[in-house]
Amino acid sequence: MTADDRLKALGLSLPVVAAPVGAYIPALVHGSTIWTSGQLPLVDGVLAAIGTVGEGEGLVSPDNAKACARIAALNALAAIAAACGGLDRVERIVRVVGYVASTPGFHAQPSVVNGASDLMVEVFGDAGRHARSAIGVASLPLGSPVEIEVEAVLRDEVALR
Amino acid sequence: MTADDRLKALGLSLPVVAAPVGAYIPALVHGSTIWTSGQLPLVDGVLAAIGTVGEGEGLVSPDNAKACARIAALNALAAIAAACGGLDRVERIVRVVGYVASTPGFHAQPSVVNGASDLMVEVFGDAGRHARSAIGVASLPLGSPVEIEVEAVLRDEVALR
Amino acid sequence: MTADDRLKALGLSLPVVAAPVGAYIPALVHGSTIWTSGQLPLVDGVLAAIGTVGEGEGLVSPDNAKACARIAALNALAAIAAACGGLDRVERIVRVVGYVASTPGFHAQPSVVNGASDLMVEVFGDAGRHARSAIGVASLPLGSPVEIEVEAVLRDEVALR
Repeated sequence: MTADDRLKALGLSLPVVAAPVGAYIPALVHGSTIWTSGQLPLVDGVLAAIGTVGEGEGLVSPDNAKACARIAALNALAAIAAACGGLDRVERIVRVVGYVASTPGFHAQPSVVNGASDLMVEVFGDAGRHARSAIGVASLPLGSPVEIEVEAVLRDEVALR
Repeated sequence: MTADDRLKALGLSLPVVAAPVGAYIPALVHGSTIWTSGQLPLVDGVLAAIGTVGEGEGLVSPDNAKACARIAALNALAAIAAACGGLDRVERIVRVVGYVASTPGFHAQPSVVNGASDLMVEVFGDAGRHARSAIGVASLPLGSPVEIEVEAVLRDEVALR
Repeated sequence: MTADDRLKALGLSLPVVAAPVGAYIPALVHGSTIWTSGQLPLVDGVLAAIGTVGEGEGLVSPDNAKACARIAALNALAAIAAACGGLDRVERIVRVVGYVASTPGFHAQPSVVNGASDLMVEVFGDAGRHARSAIGVASLPLGSPVEIEVEAVLRDEVALR
């Protein structure tokens, strides 16, 4: 099964890539490496949740944040596919950084970021297993609870886009 | 126009690279890749502003923080030039990470980090367009409002410095 | 002296690599690059300290946090050695990111992260000198005071693991 097949089997499709708000691009290919910009859990241009992650009133729950990490990761895959010509060009997901807007007392960033890591393995199999950092930060763009950044290696060297 | 020409046309010149406070170096070249250390908005060794970014009394304003991001990015370019022999060696700016010391309620990190991203495009043209993450963090070294990290690809492979 | 010799001369040995809590791996080799996941100051599976770093009652002291950064860096070296076949495969430490769980008023992240940077130079000599970012964040996994991420280049290209 290809990555595209797996995506379809998961009932997922790649969303349209959101336009950057600044002089950067959603993903950049150079040589055989691709880097995405930090991706937010936007669905049709609207954040799937807004706020800080933690346990308690007025906070984004860890489960909701994990679902957001999965959405942000799907947006990262969309940015990758658009920049390199399709997910089947991906040889390996090498690195994921997951930033989680966290109260000082919230320490389950790894389980939140698993929402992104799990998607990589579901879509790419063993080639989706990556090095990862999960970090709790003060706040994120637009009030997003999570931001996901991905670095991958492509199958063949391609021209700079 | 070369990158050096553009810098001059912008009325900018590369500052002296600040000495690191620790066992690290301002920028490292390996093969055709160059990574800078996180750069602060130091001008002649003094931070251009100190504090957390947000709206309100006692905070660094978003506009001031954006100006700081530009200064930090200029320091990153100085570190790159010193490590690789000049900005004209840069083939492509591939990745920028902008950390913004933020109150939990401040969510305009992208517009702050545009201060860095815009400079890259002004100096390198299309080759300055990069993948980027903008993150709001609790605090930064010396009380800096921003820290900017840059990864670039050089035109020819060079020896390790 | 090899890196292993230096480690022994420092009275250190590589710990067992902690199992990841998620669909990621402790370190990933691709081509001649190795990336570690973010490493915590775990000793036999227990954090060497828990809490936010700063000056004052109930906080992890900067000195204690620096010692934790050294432990986390040792765990990063263990992950590198396990993934690539030994520290003597390392040609150069290229990049270290140090995340420090910080109160908004704590700004000495560089001296904390020196705990990691110093170890790299003690073990690898000049080949341990790297580009580095030191960042103060809201909170880290399990309540860890620090998290250390390392990127290195290996001596020969190796197969993907």
